[in-house]
Amino acid sequence: MNLSWQRREVHLRHPFNIARTQRDTVTSRQVLLASIEHRGVVGWGESAPSSYYGQSLESGEKVFEAAAGLLGSDPFAIVPVLERLWERFEAESAAIAAIDAALHDLVGKLLGVPVWKLLGLDPARTPLTSFTIGIDDLEVIERKVAEAAEYPLLKIKVGTPRDEQVLQAIRRGAPDKPLRVDANCGWTSANVMEMCRLMVRYGVEFVEQPTAPGDYQGLAEVRRAGITPLIADESCVGYRDVLACAPHFDGINIKLSKCGGIRRALQMIHTARSAGMKVMLGCMVETSVGIAAAAQLAPLADYIDLDGHLLLADDPFEGIGGQQGRITLNDRPGLGVIERRG
Amino acid sequence: MNLSWQRREVHLRHPFNIARTQRDTVTSRQVLLASIEHRGVVGWGESAPSSYYGQSLESGEKVFEAAAGLLGSDPFAIVPVLERLWERFEAESAAIAAIDAALHDLVGKLLGVPVWKLLGLDPARTPLTSFTIGIDDLEVIERKVAEAAEYPLLKIKVGTPRDEQVLQAIRRGAPDKPLRVDANCGWTSANVMEMCRLMVRYGVEFVEQPTAPGDYQGLAEVRRAGITPLIADESCVGYRDVLACAPHFDGINIKLSKCGGIRRALQMIHTARSAGMKVMLGCMVETSVGIAAAAQLAPLADYIDLDGHLLLADDPFEGIGGQQGRITLNDRPGLGVIERRG
Repeated sequence: MNLSWQRREVHLRHPFNIARTQRDTVTSRQVLLASIEHRGVVGWGESAPSSYYGQSLESGEKVFEAAAGLLGSDPFAIVPVLERLWERFEAESAAIAAIDAALHDLVGKLLGVPVWKLLGLDPARTPLTSFTIGIDDLEVIERKVAEAAEYPLLKIKVGTPRDEQVLQAIRRGAPDKPLRVDANCGWTSANVMEMCRLMVRYGVEFVEQPTAPGDYQGLAEVRRAGITPLIADESCVGYRDVLACAPHFDGINIKLSKCGGIRRALQMIHTARSAGMKVMLGCMVETSVGIAAAAQLAPLADYIDLDGHLLLADDPFEGIGGQQGRITLNDRPGLGVIERRG
Repeated sequence: MNLSWQRREVHLRHPFNIARTQRDTVTSRQVLLASIEHRGVVGWGESAPSSYYGQSLESGEKVFEAAAGLLGSDPFAIVPVLERLWERFEAESAAIAAIDAALHDLVGKLLGVPVWKLLGLDPARTPLTSFTIGIDDLEVIERKVAEAAEYPLLKIKVGTPRDEQVLQAIRRGAPDKPLRVDANCGWTSANVMEMCRLMVRYGVEFVEQPTAPGDYQGLAEVRRAGITPLIADESCVGYRDVLACAPHFDGINIKLSKCGGIRRALQMIHTARSAGMKVMLGCMVETSVGIAAAAQLAPLADYIDLDGHLLLADDPFEGIGGQQGRITLNDRPGLGVIERRG
């Protein structure tokens, strides 16, 4: 098998802020697109490295350089290949997720079968995806909410001094839509009760990661305020974290770039179900390649937040849709995405 | 898809006793062989119902009767088909395991790929299987141990008044072989310390299910006596039991007939790994069809006890070997078993 990769800059439709870096406005992102070729068939995967988890484009490229010599000649031997990579690059979940996705895409294409079908799943069980409204000036937020009219589920990130005004602006444009809130670890003893009151007042469906990882006391306060379900994101990176989250959260947000790909995500889903937890599938800002890999598991999830590709102005791939919040698991072999022409 | 099934009587090479029913000598067993046909291709599965879990040949046949109308027309839709069966027949794990196996065999054959390969596994990781020496008169046990010379790992069931003599007889013939002990819930406060002393004296590799399900106090006594690892069998039936076992046992014995097939077994393996537990794959007395289904997951296990077919005088199928303790995951599509001729 031959592995190659490229950096690819993709541009956002709207500049983007998150709670952790609210002073930074992001207009574009660079991702790594990896492809694995075997007998003329090519499988694609994507790495969206996260500096929060100590990853970079450069660190991911080091994984690809080493992986080229570790892949062997059998594309079906996914588990042993991934184990070799985990042994050497434990922290490089995003790059390993790209290889995991490319191997799944390749195997699906070699067999002529979509990955969701190889996993035995029912595409009709795919939940609707939420669509993220980025934090911005209030009038811009109102415009974004209007533009997102087709999306039945909205998500916002809180953590600015203007959270209440932001929630008001969203509710003006979308008074009844289910609204999911991602707090990105921003609630502390100083603001937790105020945030909980806001959540109740503006009617949220669930809250992601209200407090910092390990702050179970703050989390218990949120729960006592009646805010549920609580979904772990930064607290639940890989499969080893699921059971540690089980006593404190109601569910986990699995992202392939955090956990290392489809295989590990499946393990996390299985573990969460055994612990009676809800399952959410999330994403980074990434192209349809990365989103398609996560989408293969969507029929196993309760909630999906797979809108990364919908936020892009220049997604180089297409094939999984997302309009009206409907991700489509199509019948194309592998991950079901193709390069856009022109 | 068309489902059909048959009762099949298979005979043991040696009469067989287990701790729970030591007064009954078993010379043959009846199993259910199910086959699912789709466009001329046939997938096989086996049900080895257990009265201990409230199952019978009759109750399994009721599942098959209903399943014939629930299978639909897409053999790849394994998860939704199994969910429909679980909703109606929660207690019928053995029969559902047969359908799960038959669908996996069918999908593998339709794609021309072995199931272990569809699961991305490395067949070279398959552990050696243990071989069970049935409880019997001491001279018969000595003869069985001699006949089992080719098998590098032995397993015995304890729970008779002659346990020490049995262990002596085994150690006379196999002084150094790793020896696994299955207590089938037989240890109580009356005998637990004596049993622990025996385990130490005769050098056992691990003990399965020393005390009754729920008797965690007795289990703690076994652990305090230094007997580890402790493997849950009757305490760990399905995926819901794995995490309840985690604080008390070191590992779980997964049997497809208990948990309901390859899909649920994979969930249990994933859950056990997330909890840091060891994984063992076990079996009932069953033909190569049932053993082959479990064997597909063997590269994910620490220990395998997949000797059910080796104990038979008239296994109607072949293909997975087992001599010298080596189960062979072959390159045939599906489960890799074929009907014996003549």
